[in-house]
Amino acid sequence: MPVVFAEIVTIGDELCRGEIVDTNAAWLAERLWDLDITVSWMTSCRDEQPDMADAFARAARRCDLVLTSGGLGPTVDDLTVDVIAELVDTAPEVDQASLDFMRARFEKAGFELTPNNMRQVRVPGGARVFDNPVGLAPGFEVTVADTPIICLPGPPRELRGIMAAGLGDRLIELREARGEAAVRMAKRIYRVFGMGESHVATALDGLCDQVEGASLHFQVKFPETLVKVVVRDPDQAHADERLGAIDGELRARLRDKMYGTDDDSLARAVGRALSAAGQTVAVAESCTGGMIGSLLTDVAGSSAYFLGGVIAYANAEKERALGVDAAILEEHGAVSAETVAAMAAGCRERLGSDWAIAVSGIAGPDGGTEVKPVGTVWVGLAGPDGIESTRRFMWPGDRERVRRLAAFAALGMLLRTVDRAGGGEPR
Amino acid sequence: MPVVFAEIVTIGDELCRGEIVDTNAAWLAERLWDLDITVSWMTSCRDEQPDMADAFARAARRCDLVLTSGGLGPTVDDLTVDVIAELVDTAPEVDQASLDFMRARFEKAGFELTPNNMRQVRVPGGARVFDNPVGLAPGFEVTVADTPIICLPGPPRELRGIMAAGLGDRLIELREARGEAAVRMAKRIYRVFGMGESHVATALDGLCDQVEGASLHFQVKFPETLVKVVVRDPDQAHADERLGAIDGELRARLRDKMYGTDDDSLARAVGRALSAAGQTVAVAESCTGGMIGSLLTDVAGSSAYFLGGVIAYANAEKERALGVDAAILEEHGAVSAETVAAMAAGCRERLGSDWAIAVSGIAGPDGGTEVKPVGTVWVGLAGPDGIESTRRFMWPGDRERVRRLAAFAALGMLLRTVDRAGGGEPR
Repeated sequence: MPVVFAEIVTIGDELCRGEIVDTNAAWLAERLWDLDITVSWMTSCRDEQPDMADAFARAARRCDLVLTSGGLGPTVDDLTVDVIAELVDTAPEVDQASLDFMRARFEKAGFELTPNNMRQVRVPGGARVFDNPVGLAPGFEVTVADTPIICLPGPPRELRGIMAAGLGDRLIELREARGEAAVRMAKRIYRVFGMGESHVATALDGLCDQVEGASLHFQVKFPETLVKVVVRDPDQAHADERLGAIDGELRARLRDKMYGTDDDSLARAVGRALSAAGQTVAVAESCTGGMIGSLLTDVAGSSAYFLGGVIAYANAEKERALGVDAAILEEHGAVSAETVAAMAAGCRERLGSDWAIAVSGIAGPDGGTEVKPVGTVWVGLAGPDGIESTRRFMWPGDRERVRRLAAFAALGMLLRTVDRAGGGEPR
Repeated sequence: MPVVFAEIVTIGDELCRGEIVDTNAAWLAERLWDLDITVSWMTSCRDEQPDMADAFARAARRCDLVLTSGGLGPTVDDLTVDVIAELVDTAPEVDQASLDFMRARFEKAGFELTPNNMRQVRVPGGARVFDNPVGLAPGFEVTVADTPIICLPGPPRELRGIMAAGLGDRLIELREARGEAAVRMAKRIYRVFGMGESHVATALDGLCDQVEGASLHFQVKFPETLVKVVVRDPDQAHADERLGAIDGELRARLRDKMYGTDDDSLARAVGRALSAAGQTVAVAESCTGGMIGSLLTDVAGSSAYFLGGVIAYANAEKERALGVDAAILEEHGAVSAETVAAMAAGCRERLGSDWAIAVSGIAGPDGGTEVKPVGTVWVGLAGPDGIESTRRFMWPGDRERVRRLAAFAALGMLLRTVDRAGGGEPR
C-alpha cells in the first residue's frame, strides 16, 4: 500500500511575526492522519508573491497532495488566488455561486458590496470549488505538476466548515486516485482522567494485538489523557465491527477512569449522570475559587442539575456560609478531611442539593508547611447517605496546575459516586 | 539597513500528525521580530534523517539565520545532533559541562545514568554550546554555508530557558555581524479590555508619527486587545526615553480601558487596586457560575483581598444565599438591574466585604427572549456607598464567549470603580 504524502502550507505575515499560533496546520494534519494521508512537511511563509509561489511549487514537487490556508481575504495582501492562477497558467475569475451567496448575505445585513469584496469570491479559472458554508471566500482545488493543491481560507471556523461540508470525501477520493487501496476507518477517542499516560498505556497493553488493522494512540491534553483507537479496513462495516469489539475490552480495562468519548467533557459526563439519576449538586470551593462551578456551568442546560454553591475562600466564610465549626478549623486546619467533610455537609444541607462537593487545598506558591506542603488538596463529597468520602491528593506543579487538577479530581469523584449510586451502568 | 531574514525549523512526528500545536515556532518568531530579525519561513518536518537534512540545508541557503527546535531528546528518534554534525562534516561529541550537570541532577534524584541519557548531552564537534538551565539537552550553534544554525530542544520550557539565559544577546550579536547597524529597542505591551481593536487603533491614531523609530502593533487576545509599542534607536537610553514620552500620551488616550502592561492580568490589576486601598471584595455569580472567583483566585496571594462569594445559579439561591426579594425576581426577572443590585447588596452585606460584584445573564444557547435575547448580561456593583452601578451588556457569540466577556466586564467595572474611589491615580 503506497503511502500518500501531503504538505500543509499556511500563509500570513501574522504567522511569521508570531502574532498567532498556527492551529490550522495542526488541525489539518490531524484530519489527514485520520484519512491515512501522511503529512511530511508543514511550511509557513509571509504574504509575499515570490515566497508563496516558491512554497506552492516545491510542495507540489515533493508531495502527492498539498493543502494551503490563508491569503484568501479581501485585501491586496491576500494573494493566494493570484499566485496559484499564475502557477497553473490561468486567470482569476469570479465564482458565481460564491458571489450570489455573498450578495444575499450583504443584502440581508444591509451592507454594500465594495470592489474589495469581489476579490474574496475569485478562484483560479477552471478550479474545482468547495463552498464555504460559514464565510465568503470559497475553497478551491487545482492541479500543479500532477499534484492536487487545495486552497482554504485562514479563519479556522471557515476552514473547518469547508472540511465538514465535503472536502473530507474529496480527500479520500484523491488518496485512492493516488493508488492507495480503498481504506475505510473506524475511530473513537476515549477520554481518561485520573490515570497518567504511562499507566493508561500499560493497562491497554496488547489490546489491539489480535485485531487486524487496529492501532492505539495516546495524547496528553492536561489534565486528561486521550486514547485514540483506529481500525482500518477496506470495508467500513468491518472496521466498525472490530472497533466495537475492542470497545468493550477497553472500557473494562480502564474502568471508571474513562469518562467519555470524542468531544465529551468531564463536566458534561457529570451532568448526564446527575440528569439520569434525577439529582442535583452544589459546590463548596476554597482553593479552586469557583472553578468547579465554572466548569459545570460551561455546559448548556446545567441549571437542570446544578443549583450553585459557596466560594468559601476565607475561613470566616467556611463558618458563616457553610456552618463549619470553628473548633474543626482550629483543631484540624482548613486543609483537612474534617473541614472538607463539614463544608460538603453544610453545603448540601443549606442548598438542599442531593450531592455536594467541597475542596480545600494549598495551591501555592506560599502557604505550604512540612506536614501540608504546597499541592496538598482535600476533596469531600456529601450525598443522600451522608458523607460519602474524603480524599487527600498531593500534586507537584504550579498554582494553576494544582487548582485545575483539584477541580477535575472533585468532578471525577462526584461522577464515579453518582454512577455507582445509580447502579454503576457502563458509560 | 539590510534586513536579516531567519527561518525556524521545528522537528517532530507529533507535529506532522497534528498531535501538538507548534507553539515554539510562534514564540521564537515573536522573539525574533522583537530583535529586528524577520522570519520569512517556518518549516516543520518529521523525525526523518533525509527530510531534516534537506530542511536544514535549504534554510541555511535561503536565510541569514536558522533556529531549530526538537530532535534533541534521548531516544533513537532524536536525530538533530547527528544530522547537523553530518552537514558540517564533524562528529557528535559529549559536552562535558552538560554531562556534569546531568550527573549532578541524577545523583541528587538517585537515578542511574543509562546510555540513552548520554545521547542528550551530545553536540556536533566544535559547536558553540548554550547551557540549558531547566533541562538536560543543551542548545548549540554551528555554521552551514556561512549561515548560523542554532538548535534548541523541543520542550517549550527548555527552549525559553535557553533564550532567557543568553541566547537573546547572541542573536543581537549575529544580527549585527550580518551588517545590520546596531539597533537597540525599547518596548512595552499595553493591555486593554473593553475596547475593540479598531477603536483602540482609532484612539491611538498618529501617536507615533512624530517619534523617530517608533511603531505601534495590535494583537487581539480574546477578550483583550494588546498594543505593542516599539522604539528603535542605536542607543538604548534614547529608545527608553522616547518610549517614556509616548507612554504618557498613550495612557491619556486609552484612559481606564488600559489596565496594565506586559504580562499583567485584569485580576492582578484588581488585586493591586484593592490592596492599595486596603479593601476586600466578594462575588455573587449566576451565569458566570464561579468564573470571576476562579479568575481572582488564579492570582497568588488573593486571599488578602478576596473573601469568597456565592454561586447563585438557581433563583432559589439568589433568595436564600443573597437575600434577593422574591418579588424582585418575580417582577423584573433574574436578568435585570434590580436583581443584580439586590445580589450585590446582599453579597456585600453577608460576606462583610467592602465591594461586591454580581452578574446575571443569559449565556445561551437557550433561554433568550425577544426582550432579553441570548447574550444579555447585567452586572451590579455594591460598595461602601451602596449600589455604585448596574450596567447592561449585550454580546453576540456563543455561551463560552458571553460568559468570559461577562466575567471580564465585571472585573473591569470593579477595577475602575475602586481606582476612582481611591483617587483615580494613574496605573
